Amino acid sequence: MFDRVDHVGIAVKDLDAAISFYEAAFGVKLAHRETIEEQGVEEAMFRVGESWIQLLRPLGPDTPVGRYIEKRGEGVHHIGYGVADLKAVLEHLKGEGMQLIDAEPRRGSRGSMVAFVHPRSVGGVLVELVQD
Amino acid sequence: MFDRVDHVGIAVKDLDAAISFYEAAFGVKLAHRETIEEQGVEEAMFRVGESWIQLLRPLGPDTPVGRYIEKRGEGVHHIGYGVADLKAVLEHLKGEGMQLIDAEPRRGSRGSMVAFVHPRSVGGVLVELVQD
Repeated sequence: MFDRVDHVGIAVKDLDAAISFYEAAFGVKLAHRETIEEQGVEEAMFRVGESWIQLLRPLGPDTPVGRYIEKRGEGVHHIGYGVADLKAVLEHLKGEGMQLIDAEPRRGSRGSMVAFVHPRSVGGVLVELVQD
Repeated sequence: MFDRVDHVGIAVKDLDAAISFYEAAFGVKLAHRETIEEQGVEEAMFRVGESWIQLLRPLGPDTPVGRYIEKRGEGVHHIGYGVADLKAVLEHLKGEGMQLIDAEPRRGSRGSMVAFVHPRSVGGVLVELVQD
């Protein structure tokens, strides 16, 4: 069902500083930067093997990532898993009684389709499903 | 420097229940289970592409993962990145002024060598470096 760890989503306050840090400390190169108004974030992506490191800066305090930082501080915000058939996976998870934040796929970054699963259903882990 | 996301380390209270959940909900199969006394955890590993999902049950409350759950609840505990030359990466990170939990490689699970970098140096993310 899960093909890969698509990305690790990390909440940061200062995106430019975080990009500079990841490039200098970890030797990764910025591959993509995009503002996604619907999700209230600006993201920066670094390729690591078949996965991405995704840095997320909230566009304001009253956004999901803004509230996350206010409550828990900077750090890992969610895990994205790559799937081949997002609709089928969502149907399966509904059948398992899981609480979905998105009952239907919606637009993610880089032209992907995504859906989030509530951390209450996944032992405190906010899970994003990604279909390229 | 980073070859892959080696694993996502997830703190759980009940390992048997979490294994059953991951198998039923996400269709992953348990590949490895091991108790690592030095780290105070029992771990369960599921393969996802080139990465692992690593579930971590603390062996007691007075362990790093036990204290993490007490303070923050269940959820993502750390991110493990695969590297080819752990000693060289640690030297580089020391040169960048980063705070290392392990200044030298130590034994991880599955015969690997590992070292942790303090989340204070990585924007709230506990990072583990893994050399197979």
